[in-house]
Amino acid sequence: VSDLGEQALIARLRARVPPPPAWVTVGIGDDAAAIEPARNELEVLTTDILVEGVHFDRRWSSSTDIGHKALAVNLSDLASMGARPRGALLSLVLPSTFPVAEFDALLGGFLELSTRHGVALLGGNLSTSPGPLIVDVTAIGTVHRRRMLMRSGGRPGDALYVSGTVGGAAAGLARLTAGTATAAGGNEAATAVRRYVRPEARVRLGLVVGRNRAASACVDLSDGLADAVRQLASASGTGATLAADAIPLDADVERVARAGGADPLLTALGGGEDYELLFAVPPRRLKGFQAACRLARDVAVTRVGALTAGTELVLDRGGQTETLPVGFTHFERTG
Amino acid sequence: VSDLGEQALIARLRARVPPPPAWVTVGIGDDAAAIEPARNELEVLTTDILVEGVHFDRRWSSSTDIGHKALAVNLSDLASMGARPRGALLSLVLPSTFPVAEFDALLGGFLELSTRHGVALLGGNLSTSPGPLIVDVTAIGTVHRRRMLMRSGGRPGDALYVSGTVGGAAAGLARLTAGTATAAGGNEAATAVRRYVRPEARVRLGLVVGRNRAASACVDLSDGLADAVRQLASASGTGATLAADAIPLDADVERVARAGGADPLLTALGGGEDYELLFAVPPRRLKGFQAACRLARDVAVTRVGALTAGTELVLDRGGQTETLPVGFTHFERTG
Repeated sequence: VSDLGEQALIARLRARVPPPPAWVTVGIGDDAAAIEPARNELEVLTTDILVEGVHFDRRWSSSTDIGHKALAVNLSDLASMGARPRGALLSLVLPSTFPVAEFDALLGGFLELSTRHGVALLGGNLSTSPGPLIVDVTAIGTVHRRRMLMRSGGRPGDALYVSGTVGGAAAGLARLTAGTATAAGGNEAATAVRRYVRPEARVRLGLVVGRNRAASACVDLSDGLADAVRQLASASGTGATLAADAIPLDADVERVARAGGADPLLTALGGGEDYELLFAVPPRRLKGFQAACRLARDVAVTRVGALTAGTELVLDRGGQTETLPVGFTHFERTG
Repeated sequence: VSDLGEQALIARLRARVPPPPAWVTVGIGDDAAAIEPARNELEVLTTDILVEGVHFDRRWSSSTDIGHKALAVNLSDLASMGARPRGALLSLVLPSTFPVAEFDALLGGFLELSTRHGVALLGGNLSTSPGPLIVDVTAIGTVHRRRMLMRSGGRPGDALYVSGTVGGAAAGLARLTAGTATAAGGNEAATAVRRYVRPEARVRLGLVVGRNRAASACVDLSDGLADAVRQLASASGTGATLAADAIPLDADVERVARAGGADPLLTALGGGEDYELLFAVPPRRLKGFQAACRLARDVAVTRVGALTAGTELVLDRGGQTETLPVGFTHFERTG
């Protein structure tokens, strides 16, 4: 890209970005973007940065995957607040040798997802680097104050529900690392790999649950289910019990874990990047929550445990209880 | 920092961040931040990322400098829109070996500047990396729609004014690169170095000029005066003439350029990172503009040229005219 230059790349980008909606007063091309806030709503902001060699590996994530994932992880944060996504800023630090075709592919992955969720690309910046590829996204959304989901609203007695399945991204990453992505495992292996390289944020589910005030708290599973339970319970000032038998394991994680001599449940609990949502649901809202989830038609939800009085975090394996293991953390991953 | 872990660092950060203002509904610690928009104002958003080895060098920028600059370059973008800064998200990718004392210093540089400008730290994220230090800031501000400054409002006949002096950051960087920062040059050299490593955004000037609707267009000098003139003229659909004699050169750039056998004027015109503001001012607003600048009591402004009909960009050297040279660009700098 370095022979094209920043202005040419920006022109290339602008040519592909759909015309902005009316609430965008100043879009791409000025020093900053300016937008009209949504009436009577809060503005929700989040940012997440993907660095080559830390958060992705170009050997197994295509540029399209990377562009998609950089937005998806931010949409997941908005979804966990019950917010409707509106716009995003995209900053790219490109290796000087990064081919223009890869720039186009990265942008394509971003724009396919942003268009699907009605997210306007508002601005950002481009620079080149002798070092790694860096893709940084700030996403903004809106939510009505009383429909917002926070981590801190849970109470003892609330049921814990998780969307989709857990452990798929960990299984996919393990397959990629071991080079067995295309080997034994068939469709389930391919699905696991796809979950890791191209996650889907549960935007509609978070939005519908928030709008129906059907949950008392929510967090996303960026760092795994065990970590999500810990974060939600800690913010809510409660303990939690997870029922091992109830946890909806991804179809591939069992095979991958056993092949590696690991416990499938612990692999799934500690495996990050599933980008599912964990909800706390008060007993009186259980029916409303289930109705909202059906309405969302996004993904199934499964009851996996409950918040408890105190601060203990417990994993219940068929009556045998143990302390919930420590989850995955981005912070300790360095490769 | 890797032996402390993300949660401990976040706790360390939270302990130092002042309590958020009332318009912050959800601050640090949830999946995303949530804020109340300012009444009847537009929301202004900008993001800029500083990467070690690309945008800064830890041999000559202290961690305090880096934390300061990462916010300052974003505040400069808000200033050029006439926006009042309100909040920021801060994302750090820290080398695993980054000492905790340096983390504290970086945060200190950020917080000193954010506190001074009333900017609330709303959130962000932390991760570790085997690679370079990355400091990414998204800043948000507000501006009344009719008081906003854009690049595109200039008209032929508008005067061009620049704040402060130009070329200081280029001189400072040249001194640092050559290792002569502390050699001949005395206070002026020290000032130039400081302008490069710890720039001040012209927040108050941009705000007051915007509020008084005293300029038709504005852009900041992140990539140098020549580039700023080009951007403003291009967005406004005009040409421009710069009067070489009128350009307020930094006191050190002349010495540094001559020592390197370069033209001081061209060094200053092409030198990035001054973070001054360039304004276009319609003839009927000249008095109002000057009054607003005095009111701002931020920094002096100097008339350096005018927008013209057509699209030509001209440098007038005492009657001899030439095409305005191409400016500095981050995109071509790779070290």
